[in-house]
Amino acid sequence: MMSISIRDIFTNPDGFIDKDIKLEGWIKTSRASKNFGFIELTDGTSFNTIQVVYGKDIENFAEIDKYPISSTLEIEGKLVKSPGKDQSLEIQAKNVNPLCVSDASYPLQKKRHTMEYLRKIAHLRPRSNTFNAVFRVRSLIAYAIHKFFQEKGFVYVHAPIITTSDAEGAGEMFQVTTLDIEALAKSEPTEVDYSKDFFDKKTHLTVSGQLEAEAFAQSFKNIYTFGPTFRAENSNTQRHAAEFWMIEPEMAFADLNVNMDVSEEMLKYIINYVLENAKEEMKFFNKFIDEGLLERLENVVNNEFARITYTEAIEILEKADREFNYPVSWGIDLQTEHERYITEEVYKKPVFVTDYPKEIKAFYMFENEDKKTVAAMDLLVPGVGEIIGGSQREHRLDVLEEKMRNIGMDMDTYDWYLDLRRYGSVVHSGYGLGFERAVMYITGMKNIRDVIPFPRTVGNAEF
Amino acid sequence: MMSISIRDIFTNPDGFIDKDIKLEGWIKTSRASKNFGFIELTDGTSFNTIQVVYGKDIENFAEIDKYPISSTLEIEGKLVKSPGKDQSLEIQAKNVNPLCVSDASYPLQKKRHTMEYLRKIAHLRPRSNTFNAVFRVRSLIAYAIHKFFQEKGFVYVHAPIITTSDAEGAGEMFQVTTLDIEALAKSEPTEVDYSKDFFDKKTHLTVSGQLEAEAFAQSFKNIYTFGPTFRAENSNTQRHAAEFWMIEPEMAFADLNVNMDVSEEMLKYIINYVLENAKEEMKFFNKFIDEGLLERLENVVNNEFARITYTEAIEILEKADREFNYPVSWGIDLQTEHERYITEEVYKKPVFVTDYPKEIKAFYMFENEDKKTVAAMDLLVPGVGEIIGGSQREHRLDVLEEKMRNIGMDMDTYDWYLDLRRYGSVVHSGYGLGFERAVMYITGMKNIRDVIPFPRTVGNAEF
Repeated sequence: MMSISIRDIFTNPDGFIDKDIKLEGWIKTSRASKNFGFIELTDGTSFNTIQVVYGKDIENFAEIDKYPISSTLEIEGKLVKSPGKDQSLEIQAKNVNPLCVSDASYPLQKKRHTMEYLRKIAHLRPRSNTFNAVFRVRSLIAYAIHKFFQEKGFVYVHAPIITTSDAEGAGEMFQVTTLDIEALAKSEPTEVDYSKDFFDKKTHLTVSGQLEAEAFAQSFKNIYTFGPTFRAENSNTQRHAAEFWMIEPEMAFADLNVNMDVSEEMLKYIINYVLENAKEEMKFFNKFIDEGLLERLENVVNNEFARITYTEAIEILEKADREFNYPVSWGIDLQTEHERYITEEVYKKPVFVTDYPKEIKAFYMFENEDKKTVAAMDLLVPGVGEIIGGSQREHRLDVLEEKMRNIGMDMDTYDWYLDLRRYGSVVHSGYGLGFERAVMYITGMKNIRDVIPFPRTVGNAEF
Repeated sequence: MMSISIRDIFTNPDGFIDKDIKLEGWIKTSRASKNFGFIELTDGTSFNTIQVVYGKDIENFAEIDKYPISSTLEIEGKLVKSPGKDQSLEIQAKNVNPLCVSDASYPLQKKRHTMEYLRKIAHLRPRSNTFNAVFRVRSLIAYAIHKFFQEKGFVYVHAPIITTSDAEGAGEMFQVTTLDIEALAKSEPTEVDYSKDFFDKKTHLTVSGQLEAEAFAQSFKNIYTFGPTFRAENSNTQRHAAEFWMIEPEMAFADLNVNMDVSEEMLKYIINYVLENAKEEMKFFNKFIDEGLLERLENVVNNEFARITYTEAIEILEKADREFNYPVSWGIDLQTEHERYITEEVYKKPVFVTDYPKEIKAFYMFENEDKKTVAAMDLLVPGVGEIIGGSQREHRLDVLEEKMRNIGMDMDTYDWYLDLRRYGSVVHSGYGLGFERAVMYITGMKNIRDVIPFPRTVGNAEF
């Protein structure tokens, strides 16, 4: 008999009810009375478990409830509607065969564990309800992003991970090398000879694939990257990881309005995809992790996002009937408290803020006619603050060159980037979505360490 | 009027014929006679270009053929059936507005360029026919892989990129550090203090996500990774890059047969997806890059793959009516010449070779009853040789521990990996597919540098 999965059962129960089935899985809980035993079985394919009921007639009846939690079983039996109220389906087992009996010291016993404890057993924590739901939803969000862009004809581009560019202060970087550091340290004082390094040059891990993405947008019109990026920042917060994934779409023949349209459509698409394909998991998050989550997400999906300029945002904040820790005036960078006030208390829905002072934004952003602001946009969402940042890019060679010179960039290193303005330059725009921020937002999880399979943070690169 | 794309036109020509349309794009070629001008326009959304015809009545008629190749235009006009034979559709332009006039020194003039030259302008080469096709197909293959696994309920796992594990000799590694190497070199002789490094430890770039993938397979049953991996090997060949992407599915309750079934199904799925969704590109490859490509791929899709053991493969090679550079005997590692003989000359289709001598395979592979071989599999395909490698994993704690001790592995570092055998151990299997190898195989491109947007190889990390 072919094995089936718990996912098969819950996808199409009518196809299996009152039929003999076989399936394998792990014991989540197990108990037995004199004449009956009950196993809550999981096989990893579904957030749901299935109840297995067995009677005294089974040969190994006496041993079964001795198998420790997490032991691996093969079950043969009949799928029936459960007489109980809570559970609609159960298996009346004819055979309960132990495949691998687990050690009784299993660190994930059925009780409440702290998040800190679970992080220490990152190789086992996806077996817990919370992390099972988190990592399945993470996978669905990743897929929804690909699906959204592919259906719109965007080309997926793998931006390089190892780079010689220093990304102009976008963040602290990790160095990548094959030099023997230990030998260098032990040697008499000397200079580092990078011609002996693997790439003949000093190299780092990328902080963004945007510049490379722009080159491809000028070939394919619409492209997106989705890959890991790195920051060597010594910030031990709930929202910072040294290694995280980013999505960076880039579109030619697209101004800031198109940029906002696409990000709004994308965010709604992803949320809808998860709400539809992870119903059980989302109910779980709403109940145990973040009450009000579903309401908040429905609110995002069903509302048109607001669009205001930075200057309007400053006016709103100046008029606000409350004290901010960071005082407000035109020219400041918006802080999380400002962002959340605007999106949570004023608009009560996602808000795009556009046209920031050029001094607080990156060199590659398109300078507006007022010469004071750039065509940047940040998307602020209730509960989080900024979740997407983007801009129309400066496509005028002379304007860009002047800006780069003014901040002292190495023009040789970026000559290829300037080529994009020399040959076939075009109005273009793009944005960045921090993937883990999106996962946190959609699951309600509060710590970035709890949405990454094996998180890398200051002092921690275990597993 | 809303702009449309060339992709829109070719997807649904009847929706636009004899209608006024607007679109933007880049000049690929341009010529004019006294009374008419012709522009071959691309907008990046399609491998196809569209011909734009304009007459003397247009205001800027005299300037248009002076705009250099790659200049950006906005076209307004009517889409009509072309009177010529070659091209079925053209635009009779009413307006040809230059958006950005390109510099005339455009390095990608319409003539044959060498692959070496094109690699030097990696930021522009996706605008050439060959690389436009390569990178669109690369994107489609990536998506097909996600689609295949997601439709089967596999969970996508991001394995960590930065790792403390040394992967037991799977390859030379890059070190990742925030230590000031230059200061260390200049200082008096000293020891490296890794407690001052970012992660408090010596860290590297990953060579494989398999071990982490196994942990997640024991939670979700079926999972896959798809991310960058790294080798610091000084091998300057057509098939080696320092940075490349890998797909590593891992399945619980799955023996070697399931492993072969899934890889066969996956490879056929991807190829079918590309044949269906990149018809023009695939015809182009077949004509200009690799004659016989389409026939070879159809052959893969329409045949059941052969399955033989390593021992049978050795017998076939020993009986072969030809000389090999590497002599054949039981126990050797198969070389490309052996692999290609078996798949190209004997079977003329893809062949799985299974059950290799344990000495030539990795420690984590399941030891067969004969105690001489392990449950490994390699998939050999005509034209390439090995494209997929995998195995059933050793799930018996005692057998695995003994093997690890015998090869002198650090048991503490891998204690978490042993936990997977202590708690809920299960027959499981997985394999690795080098993404770029798959792209080369499906496009017929011969050099790995030509299927990666910005390749990283010995001495090269440009852009």
